[in-house]
Amino acid sequence: SSATQSRTSTATTPPKSGKATMTRPHTSSSESPLMVHLLLCCTFLLALAAPATTAASVPAPALTPAKQNMTWDVEYILWSPDCQQRVMIGINGKFPGPNITARAGETLSITVNNKLHTEGLVIHWHGMRQVGTPWADGTASISQCAISPGDSFTYEFVADKPGTYFYHGHFGMQRAAGLYGWLVVNATAEQDEPYRRDYDGGELRMLLSDWYHDNVYAQAAGLEQKYDHFQWVGEPQTILINGRGQYDCMLGAVTRFHRGIDRRARTCVRGKEAKLCGDEERCLRRSECGPYCPQSQCAPVVFDVEPGRTYRLRIASTTSLSALNVQVQGHDLTVVEADGNPVEPFTVPDIDIYSGESYSVLLTTNHTPTFYRSGSFWISVGVRGRPPKTLPATAILRYTNSRFPWPGSPPPATPAWYDLQRSKDFTHRINARRNAAEAPPPPRTEQVNRTIVMLNTQTLVGGHMKWAVNNVSLTLPATPYLGAYFYGVQGSAFDASGEAPNGFPGGYDIDLPPANNSYETTLSDRVYELPHGAVVDVVLQNADMRRDNDSETHPWHLHGHDFWVLGYGEGRYTSGRERLNTEDPPLRNTVVVFPHGWTAIRFVADNVGAWAFHCHIEPHLHMGMGAVFVEGAHKIRELDVPREAMMCGVIRTTAAALTPAKPGSSAPAPSAHR
Amino acid sequence: SSATQSRTSTATTPPKSGKATMTRPHTSSSESPLMVHLLLCCTFLLALAAPATTAASVPAPALTPAKQNMTWDVEYILWSPDCQQRVMIGINGKFPGPNITARAGETLSITVNNKLHTEGLVIHWHGMRQVGTPWADGTASISQCAISPGDSFTYEFVADKPGTYFYHGHFGMQRAAGLYGWLVVNATAEQDEPYRRDYDGGELRMLLSDWYHDNVYAQAAGLEQKYDHFQWVGEPQTILINGRGQYDCMLGAVTRFHRGIDRRARTCVRGKEAKLCGDEERCLRRSECGPYCPQSQCAPVVFDVEPGRTYRLRIASTTSLSALNVQVQGHDLTVVEADGNPVEPFTVPDIDIYSGESYSVLLTTNHTPTFYRSGSFWISVGVRGRPPKTLPATAILRYTNSRFPWPGSPPPATPAWYDLQRSKDFTHRINARRNAAEAPPPPRTEQVNRTIVMLNTQTLVGGHMKWAVNNVSLTLPATPYLGAYFYGVQGSAFDASGEAPNGFPGGYDIDLPPANNSYETTLSDRVYELPHGAVVDVVLQNADMRRDNDSETHPWHLHGHDFWVLGYGEGRYTSGRERLNTEDPPLRNTVVVFPHGWTAIRFVADNVGAWAFHCHIEPHLHMGMGAVFVEGAHKIRELDVPREAMMCGVIRTTAAALTPAKPGSSAPAPSAHR
Repeated sequence: SSATQSRTSTATTPPKSGKATMTRPHTSSSESPLMVHLLLCCTFLLALAAPATTAASVPAPALTPAKQNMTWDVEYILWSPDCQQRVMIGINGKFPGPNITARAGETLSITVNNKLHTEGLVIHWHGMRQVGTPWADGTASISQCAISPGDSFTYEFVADKPGTYFYHGHFGMQRAAGLYGWLVVNATAEQDEPYRRDYDGGELRMLLSDWYHDNVYAQAAGLEQKYDHFQWVGEPQTILINGRGQYDCMLGAVTRFHRGIDRRARTCVRGKEAKLCGDEERCLRRSECGPYCPQSQCAPVVFDVEPGRTYRLRIASTTSLSALNVQVQGHDLTVVEADGNPVEPFTVPDIDIYSGESYSVLLTTNHTPTFYRSGSFWISVGVRGRPPKTLPATAILRYTNSRFPWPGSPPPATPAWYDLQRSKDFTHRINARRNAAEAPPPPRTEQVNRTIVMLNTQTLVGGHMKWAVNNVSLTLPATPYLGAYFYGVQGSAFDASGEAPNGFPGGYDIDLPPANNSYETTLSDRVYELPHGAVVDVVLQNADMRRDNDSETHPWHLHGHDFWVLGYGEGRYTSGRERLNTEDPPLRNTVVVFPHGWTAIRFVADNVGAWAFHCHIEPHLHMGMGAVFVEGAHKIRELDVPREAMMCGVIRTTAAALTPAKPGSSAPAPSAHR
Repeated sequence: SSATQSRTSTATTPPKSGKATMTRPHTSSSESPLMVHLLLCCTFLLALAAPATTAASVPAPALTPAKQNMTWDVEYILWSPDCQQRVMIGINGKFPGPNITARAGETLSITVNNKLHTEGLVIHWHGMRQVGTPWADGTASISQCAISPGDSFTYEFVADKPGTYFYHGHFGMQRAAGLYGWLVVNATAEQDEPYRRDYDGGELRMLLSDWYHDNVYAQAAGLEQKYDHFQWVGEPQTILINGRGQYDCMLGAVTRFHRGIDRRARTCVRGKEAKLCGDEERCLRRSECGPYCPQSQCAPVVFDVEPGRTYRLRIASTTSLSALNVQVQGHDLTVVEADGNPVEPFTVPDIDIYSGESYSVLLTTNHTPTFYRSGSFWISVGVRGRPPKTLPATAILRYTNSRFPWPGSPPPATPAWYDLQRSKDFTHRINARRNAAEAPPPPRTEQVNRTIVMLNTQTLVGGHMKWAVNNVSLTLPATPYLGAYFYGVQGSAFDASGEAPNGFPGGYDIDLPPANNSYETTLSDRVYELPHGAVVDVVLQNADMRRDNDSETHPWHLHGHDFWVLGYGEGRYTSGRERLNTEDPPLRNTVVVFPHGWTAIRFVADNVGAWAFHCHIEPHLHMGMGAVFVEGAHKIRELDVPREAMMCGVIRTTAAALTPAKPGSSAPAPSAHR
């Protein structure tokens, strides 16, 4: 099942002092393409003389201390990510949150101060395996209590493996409220990535997300309305690149394809906004300042690159819903990394990316600008897999010798959203990098201790629309599982009377909706208990949704681990009959299951803790599409779990009962000050 | 300073089986006034034959048990309070929250389940004195930790005194998100209210509030932006009566006065909406269903009353900002109760009401409907004291013998917003009911143990706009004060190195902004400690805001007490020179301080606990306009404080440190199950 790919043809010259900066485009009051180019050409030449923007540049590798300390204030901010002002959850006054750039092996110590007035929060470090620090995984109800308003918590963990990661909120739907940012781990000199010598131009970063104008509280309330009043979140208003987008407008000429998306779609006008750019007061507010003001929060991302080099473009997706496709006008992309693991390189004109995934692709700046070809290229990010209602997002790749700062032609169109086979073809091409120490093969199939088959269904429970795994829609308890095991109060904290179901009835017809299968779904907070070190196979089995003949693509993400993706198939998985790739399966932390198909993964339950495994689509997780693996349950009590992070639910009550409050006498000094 | 008032002339006949129901009006597709009346007449006759709506009717007094138990689920709901759908904080799926009707002396036991996904919450029982149960006061950071998502807390307290009260959220700005409802305490047979025999028609209830389309998170973020980016909440979009309003439209004919408020103001059209009424599916959604559909969430409140009777109209205001004026077309109002205390009756054409206040007024249905006078009357509720940008709210008082269900004339106009003297005149007329056991006189001035003068200022602190008392803008700590005293960890929980300031510099010029007084404001969580039983006078001293020549009216609310309002004055208060009313001052829990004036109150610090005293304007409190009184500090440790309600901030850390977690052994059974 492994696709054969020749090595990428990217340059292998030794690293030069490549520099990649993200700046914002310059403004013009003209709309005529030729005039624009002539005018912008002048602006651009002036800009070249100006000092380069370095705020968003990626720092050159340097020796870092073994520990990196950060302090973050998480608070509400008014922000205009797509030129429309909304309240968002920001970090240190900004959206997206700070870029973390770590070196492999380094300890990250991030003190999070919750300055939200009434909301708790946690932050999940997506892709970090948290070996030995399961309490730092940042999943509410699983690894810790939410950090209460006014309280702080310090996440301390090892960035153990080089790769492309990110962090995000993992409580309610706070990720969709803007609580996310980059977490990039660079390789050490000794532990180099196998593709390090394949690029000489530095790196570029694109963190992709989607953005809704309705706030997450309203989104959640809509999802919870009963019966026909269920209100789906719908398609996002805007796709964001590094937190920037342009609602309801395209910066490049609107093509026929884009007009098909939305009748209101229009090419953004550069008149009114350009005038506003000069009005510093209004631009500082940023809500009234369009994408053509350089100060604007919604100005497009521009990557300034040198010609004749190969760049590493890191791409990650933390969308709430959307599956995306990324293409760079006129440039092929060579995939070398997926979710922090090296993959056998293959070259494609564009890539698909699902929420929770990350890639590194190599891109060679091999064009020569001419009078007709500016040397500036559109990067297009469009929606796949769902009827498109959201305009593609655009960024600009700009050669330092570009004649014009803006591309002259329209942005490339996204592949047809319904071309599922194209998506499958891309996904199937991803395999482990050959002969790479960082890509070990999985344990043999004979070593597998347990196989869990997980039927994915959408169904009604008590009139509420839910997603379920094997008939069970996950509800999260008030007490974190990790704390419940640590304190030995499982029975009080959640339904510990049995495990979550290991499979589903043999007679279940995946081509019929759950209702037609007479298969009643229940709510539960039961877990899967996995003995320490067990080799576990999980088969994700897709099926009909509530509506017949309808099935969706779900990206499943596992906490605490990378897993091997053994294969994908159509229809119902049948053990033994299916051919699995145990030779060079890719290691990942997120994998898709395609409509009416199955996906098989394998991992070793060698990470003591409680780990979420869930669909990374925010509303699907909110509707119960997840499971919890407890690994090495008996060893959890031996961990040095930070007790103050577990003081909620039944543990809070237990702790309160144990506290020797002595009226009239002094209570003991607290162990920590506010 | 006590205004002499003759007894009200309302009927004193013995109680009949008066019935007051709140129903919604019927629909019509016509707009011509005469046609409307003719058409509605028929509709109305049909309606008379239909069974009366009783869902919202006030139950007749009955023997109640000594304890009333309730269970509330607090959750996000999609609701259309003013015909525009928004997410709100609802209770048991509805907005406003359930009506509580208690009998004096009864214990209320209300279990609150927090079903908000990420937000904590508390509920304050506004006007309940909580003698002996200070932990049930429902003020986050003061009386308890916020109830975390997924957790529950049972408020148990005695409804000790008959009167007109309400409850609301007291964490962040959650009150403004819709978390409020009625709390009415009826008198027992033995402990009758002195005005009980003055009405024979039952009671009507109007809970007033104002509503913003921006959510409270965005409002808070705007208030916290620095310097010139400070974003004031502005005037509310809609005034609500019992949670119902009509955004940007008047149900009655728009008068010239109302047109002056907003050029967009219009009389609502009854065509399109009436058509929608028949579309049950859409009306069930309620967001697309205008005020003329009876099922609509924004249909106006209608009070059906019998002619020739006197009704008790209970009015309370839980507005976020607005001072309101209430009038009932063609009916005088006799004020008999304020904040649960009997006042000497006086009759007025309309009343002013500030946020946090409540009144009972008597209203006699003494009109005889004619062909030209329908027997239906508008109730108008308009904004006072601020330049009007919000349309008045309207409800309908409808006689059972009314010829038409809708009034024929335009709603009465609100008195001029800037007529401050009119507001003062009304306020000054409120005095204690003479010779009533329920209205005792205050302790004599010689008995006063302490006088605190509180300068009210608005100023910048570190670039942030704040409100302050004596130079201090209140910040609330993560640890509740009550818990800090109970556990003896004051020094770790807040700044216990000294008290909040008792006054302000003698040279301070209240007619100049704080900046011109060189008076720097700081943030602090210091408290006032009052010995148990101390007689305390507080003088609220108003002053210039940040802008010169500008001063606002603030309604100050005290928790845990009623206080005597000793008087109001202009300019700077000078002890000894000011004439205070110690003869018949009214007891209240909320009092206003007028622009550039002062207000003096007196209370006895005989309620052991920690009590908030604050401006009841939600954004002002959020900006620090408050203080905390700790009464009988040494006795707090003797209280039976529910420990699990204090497990946040430093207490959580302390408790966690004390918990004997024994790896490998079973932890003790928790004292409560989830």
